[in-house]
Order: sequence, then C-alpha cells, then structure tokens
Amino acid sequence: MKVELRTDVLTNNNLSADFNRDLFTKTNTLVVNLMSSPGAGKTTTLCETIRRLSSEFKIAVIEGDLATSQDADRIRETGAQAVQINTHGGCHLDARMIASVLPEFDFSEVDILFIENVGNLVCPSGYDLGQTHKVAVLSVPEGNDKIPKYPTMFMRTELVLLNKIDILPFVDFDIEMAKKDLEALNANSSIISLSARSGEGFDTWIQWIKDAYNACQKQ
Amino acid sequence: MKVELRTDVLTNNNLSADFNRDLFTKTNTLVVNLMSSPGAGKTTTLCETIRRLSSEFKIAVIEGDLATSQDADRIRETGAQAVQINTHGGCHLDARMIASVLPEFDFSEVDILFIENVGNLVCPSGYDLGQTHKVAVLSVPEGNDKIPKYPTMFMRTELVLLNKIDILPFVDFDIEMAKKDLEALNANSSIISLSARSGEGFDTWIQWIKDAYNACQKQ
Repeated sequence: MKVELRTDVLTNNNLSADFNRDLFTKTNTLVVNLMSSPGAGKTTTLCETIRRLSSEFKIAVIEGDLATSQDADRIRETGAQAVQINTHGGCHLDARMIASVLPEFDFSEVDILFIENVGNLVCPSGYDLGQTHKVAVLSVPEGNDKIPKYPTMFMRTELVLLNKIDILPFVDFDIEMAKKDLEALNANSSIISLSARSGEGFDTWIQWIKDAYNACQKQ
Repeated sequence: MKVELRTDVLTNNNLSADFNRDLFTKTNTLVVNLMSSPGAGKTTTLCETIRRLSSEFKIAVIEGDLATSQDADRIRETGAQAVQINTHGGCHLDARMIASVLPEFDFSEVDILFIENVGNLVCPSGYDLGQTHKVAVLSVPEGNDKIPKYPTMFMRTELVLLNKIDILPFVDFDIEMAKKDLEALNANSSIISLSARSGEGFDTWIQWIKDAYNACQKQ
C-alpha cells in the first residue's frame, strides 16, 4: 500500500496568489514585487521612489524581513503606509503571508503597492505573490557575474534595477556584459541603471512605473 | 488513522555531516565553511587567501553555486584543487552534497579545505556540513543593518569577515555599530575587517586560519 500524503507547497501558494491577484485586479492596484540580495538597496530605492511618486499616487508597502521592523520604519518616514512581515528565519515571502496582511490596507486608497521581499537572490523568485510585476534589484558592488550565477531570479523577473551606479568607479562591474548575459537568459527583461543615493537614472524607472500603472487601469 | 511519513531533513543532513566530520578529523583537515550574500566577495577573498597560504599549506576548495563553474575556474587559477557543485537552483549546500564529492580529494594531500557556500545570507546557515568552522563574509556596501536583520547567519557563525573596506569612504557603513550588533547577538563571534582587493587586514585573517589549523592538529 502506498499512501500519498505529499502536499504541493507551490500549488497551495498559487491558490493564495490567485486570491491576491483577484483583489489587486478588481481594485486596479499596481503591485510590484521587489527582490534582491541582502543590501542591494531595495529599501533606499523604495524610499526615493515613493518621494518621487507621492504627489501623484497613493502608495503602500509590505516589508518582508527575517527580523526587525527597521525597513518598515524607514518607509513610514516617507509618509507611505507600511506593514512589516517578519518571517522569523524564513527565506522568502509566500502568497499566504501577503494574503494575511491585505486586510490592513484600504485598497480604495492605494494606487501602487510595493512588496519588498526578503533579501535573497534565490528562494523568493520561486513564489508567485499575485503581483503585477516582478523586479530584481542588483547592485554594482555585487559584480556582473550574478546574472549567470543566479539564473532563476533573472529568468523570472521582467526588469533589473542596476543600483548603486554612483560607486561604479570604485568597483568591478561591466554593464555591457551584464546586458548581454541578461539578454541571453531572458529576452523579455531589461536593465535600468540608477542610484538611489544620487537619484541618477530615476526618471526612467519612475516612467516605467507610471506606464505599468496606466496599463493596469486599462485591464 | 494518522500515518506519520515526515522525513526529518535536518536529521538526515546531520548524519551526513557527522560522516564528513569523522573524515576531516581523522585526516587532520581544517575545513572552513564560508557563507555570505551574493557578491560579498567570497571567491575573491578565497583567491587572495590561497595565494598567501599556498607556500605553507596544501589547499583544496569546494565551490557551491546554482549554476556555472566560474568560481571553480577562478580558484583553479591560483593552483588549488577546486571541485564545483551545482545545486541547479538549490539555495544552499547540504552535507550529502559535500559527502558526494569527497572521493574526488586525496585527503593525505589536503591541509585546509574551504567550502564556498551558495551566495545566500539565510538558508546555508541552517545546514551543518561537518566543517571545523563557519565563517560569514559581509561586505560594507551591504550596510551594517544586515547583522540584526539576518540574525540566524550571525548567531551560527564564529567569525565575520567584513570585506571591501577599500570602498568604505564611498558607502554608508558604521563598523562600530556592526561590532555592537554582533556582540549583542553572538558574544562568541568577532569581526575581522579586510579588503580582498587591497589586501588590507589579511594578516589578521591569515593568522586566524593558522591558529585554527594548529588547533586541528592537536585534537
């Protein structure tokens, strides 16, 4: 006798992701799932993004971290609503964690929801959260070999924010090589180079968000 | 009727870790498991470490990556033996993966084995590989908030190599705060600041390895 008790973790995740997606679609909310290595600058990028969008859009943020509420505190300083999820050691956000905090938001008052995933260039890419878009953040001090070395992340995202280009002169990073590696891996993705510290390159990223928001409203 | 089919993944891992540890102990091999975020500079640090130790010690390396053999190729350029493990998307090395490549080494010809784990500041810390010591690498562009935000890694390691201090003037990193955060989390760990690019701070790290090697021989 063979007893099959295996639970398909990803099937369960996808059910919750569909639930989240339905809510986001019905409320015309643009939802961006930001993923990266620890320290690539997701929170700093988000804070600068919110400052540039807040006169036009109502913005909310879900912050994923193993521990602490440091990132949510930083987001709240911009005036945006932020809800912190602590995974208590867990290496990624899943769709059920997202579903569990959605009641904390009034989606008639949210245009754009950013989800800042746990800092991890591997596991988060495997979990659909119901987001509209998945965006990877890569920072130049990490080195341009990260695209071929962590292919699942770059195959499953639609855009790469190449961050910290203000310190490009002091590190080894070949942007042209990164573009070639990304194109070879995922022809539907592209790179926007920027610096959350200096603001360089932000106009292109802000326009990308506005285009994505407008596309959401037409669905 | 309740059927209990749960396999304890970590118990299985620990059996393999004990197997590895027995071999390392019997052959007086110092084994260092290096863990960090992607791009913290493990490979560059290892290459410089091997160059400084190779006249005195026979060194071998196991390289863990999701994909590619780029890191093993870089290690081989130093003259050290390197074996690449590709996890094909897996987020950490486990003890069975290590056990499976041990026959590729002649341990009568190895004094020190470095294991470079998959770049991930979360998952690898949960898996005992049978190593003598666990060392975390943190790089200054990642920011000093990483110690409280990724506590499991820093609670389970015995030393933090704080890398890339050559670019400290161009990033926001508070070394004193990092030392305080580490002390609060793990009184048995400490920080060695260094730069794999400039060589600064390497004397202290090399002495740490020599002391660890000597301690191995006395067991």
